[in-house]
Amino acid sequence: MINLLHIPEGVRDIYGSECINKAKFEAAIKDCMHSYGYGDVVTPSFEYFDIFNKERGTMSSRDMFKFFDKDGNTLVLRPDITPPMARVTAKYFKDSFMPVRLCYRAKQYINHSSLQGKLKETTQLGAELYNDASVFADFEILLLTIKSILACGVENFQLEIGITDFYHGIIEMAGLDSEEEEQLKELLEQKNIFGLENFADTCKAPEEIKVLIAKLADLYGGSEILSKVKELKLPEKSIVAVERLETINSMLSELGFDKYVSFDLSMPSKFTYYTGIFFRGITYGAGEPIAYGGRYDNLVKQFGLDVPAIGFSITLDYLMISLEREGIMPEAKRDMTLLFYDEESGREAFKKAEEMRANGQKVRMIMDNDGSIAEKLSKYHDESLRDESKKVIVHELETFDLNDVIEIK
Amino acid sequence: MINLLHIPEGVRDIYGSECINKAKFEAAIKDCMHSYGYGDVVTPSFEYFDIFNKERGTMSSRDMFKFFDKDGNTLVLRPDITPPMARVTAKYFKDSFMPVRLCYRAKQYINHSSLQGKLKETTQLGAELYNDASVFADFEILLLTIKSILACGVENFQLEIGITDFYHGIIEMAGLDSEEEEQLKELLEQKNIFGLENFADTCKAPEEIKVLIAKLADLYGGSEILSKVKELKLPEKSIVAVERLETINSMLSELGFDKYVSFDLSMPSKFTYYTGIFFRGITYGAGEPIAYGGRYDNLVKQFGLDVPAIGFSITLDYLMISLEREGIMPEAKRDMTLLFYDEESGREAFKKAEEMRANGQKVRMIMDNDGSIAEKLSKYHDESLRDESKKVIVHELETFDLNDVIEIK
Repeated sequence: MINLLHIPEGVRDIYGSECINKAKFEAAIKDCMHSYGYGDVVTPSFEYFDIFNKERGTMSSRDMFKFFDKDGNTLVLRPDITPPMARVTAKYFKDSFMPVRLCYRAKQYINHSSLQGKLKETTQLGAELYNDASVFADFEILLLTIKSILACGVENFQLEIGITDFYHGIIEMAGLDSEEEEQLKELLEQKNIFGLENFADTCKAPEEIKVLIAKLADLYGGSEILSKVKELKLPEKSIVAVERLETINSMLSELGFDKYVSFDLSMPSKFTYYTGIFFRGITYGAGEPIAYGGRYDNLVKQFGLDVPAIGFSITLDYLMISLEREGIMPEAKRDMTLLFYDEESGREAFKKAEEMRANGQKVRMIMDNDGSIAEKLSKYHDESLRDESKKVIVHELETFDLNDVIEIK
Repeated sequence: MINLLHIPEGVRDIYGSECINKAKFEAAIKDCMHSYGYGDVVTPSFEYFDIFNKERGTMSSRDMFKFFDKDGNTLVLRPDITPPMARVTAKYFKDSFMPVRLCYRAKQYINHSSLQGKLKETTQLGAELYNDASVFADFEILLLTIKSILACGVENFQLEIGITDFYHGIIEMAGLDSEEEEQLKELLEQKNIFGLENFADTCKAPEEIKVLIAKLADLYGGSEILSKVKELKLPEKSIVAVERLETINSMLSELGFDKYVSFDLSMPSKFTYYTGIFFRGITYGAGEPIAYGGRYDNLVKQFGLDVPAIGFSITLDYLMISLEREGIMPEAKRDMTLLFYDEESGREAFKKAEEMRANGQKVRMIMDNDGSIAEKLSKYHDESLRDESKKVIVHELETFDLNDVIEIK
């Protein structure tokens, strides 16, 4: 028999101070998104499989949680929130003559193999900007990503930014066959410098492109990499791409946020739908990126509305792991008054509590007929668990001020 | 080919003012729960099937969404939040020497047949109070349910309260066989007065119990029903049950909340795990109850911790339908400044916007190189969509103040 206390691999219970912090971070990120004019959307936890299939999706079908409704339709727990948001935009905002700004907090579900040790359910907070193809839109999304992460107290992070056209410019001039293209992508993913040099030597690309391919894995770093790469002889498309990144960097720099970005021109896009800049947020603490984002100008038209789009999402679970590992998770404090009462004094105590709540206080009622709970609590109060600020830990989950314990008996 | 804009039956997209209101109600209910000292818990969206099986669950297995992880385990989208909360309490709070108060906002998933027209995914906000078997705990949960509903602006509602022991007291004295018991339950569910009289006539219960059974379907109404029923000759267990309801009613009455409750002594409990009071919240607008709750003293011990428990949950979706149908859904207002800019003025405009955001303003950037967006907007401004308070509807989703449109060019 299964132990009833067990939960499946890759999902978690969240409670106590972790849960308080999670709610705080969710609110901080949402406030940030709202301050940029983004409006909330909630989509269903599951949708038809077709929304996420390989023309639109980022996920292999076998990594989705699939099940059936009573009419035999195949439903999928959302493995990615971008396609449903594109659907929402095409469906409800098709008449908008202005850019559309939407944001969400939603669970994402991926049927990882348990061996990978990854979370199968994560909380994503993201924002999407539709109907604005300009570099200002790219800039806004990067700015909002940075400010959302900062709003949670994470300072040690980098957004690694790539851009699809840099690579596409080179590929178009290289005249590779599809097998060679695959091979090149793989070498780039591995950042295999020797492999790339070797590949450049043997492929049938023009000489100037071979030089670029051999150097591809080296093209990452701070903004200086952008001027450095322009010294190379680049295809026109790649030059335009680099210049877009330069514009973005200079705008970020004017606001003092350029320290949070770096560039990786060799980075192959993780998601097939990206069509411009794309990025991921890396921290020292979390083993996984805490954020992903990018431009996807060809996705929404699959839902019937041809508008450009760019967006990002933060994986709050990994962001919190990062704070935890860096030792900078804030103390979750819950100011609470414990109101002790007994059988006799109950009615009076509840009235008192209602008055206090009406004044904005948090009051927890404790029936304690023989005084034994208060006694146990005072033992904690006197002993080791008491800290300087007169807080006591009553069990592993909470802190509150013992000065706020009142007794009605 | 499936239309990509379609979503499955029984689930919804929520956006615009509905989504703003939903977030507001969620926060209002959570604030209310926190003011009573309840702490947030988030459990996984899916768990092992066994948590919800028929010994613990309220739901037939065929009404659950079931699927598999890669290790072949059967997982279930949570059809009910009470069993996972019981699991959490038994697992993490077993050493607590005080009552444990937990609350949640969680999705609930039920695989209804589409023909029923019911929601398959709903948002539940609930609270659970463990380790307090007293009538004060019953009272607190009822009070908190009432105040949570009031916090959303719903005034026209009733909590219909039943209590398991009233019925159990009668059944124990009646000596019915299990087939007769089933039959009686069915008649009560249908409030079939003639059927009950007939059943009373023909069953083999003692004469005084027959009298009670014949009258069962009539035993509902305001608190006067409690004194009325005590005039009947009741089994001891039923008397104790009625007296508990009287105590609760008198405490609610002292705080002025008794007008929100009524009593139904004939109501069979919907959930098999209830062991004391149980209730549902009825409104005039929604076709479904907006809240359920009750005492379930035997559930947590199945997870290894023998503590009494009582709790409730509000189905926010039905509560909002009720507000909508009563025509008292508040206007969702989003104060927003639209900042128009063009290619040239972009950098300056973004700096200005950052300053405004730092001052707590919400600023939405609109690139408008040829002024056509501003022109369209002013058309709305001049014409029919303008209302008295100088608000304009730019599309179906939002209102904002046109005085707050600024232009940097």
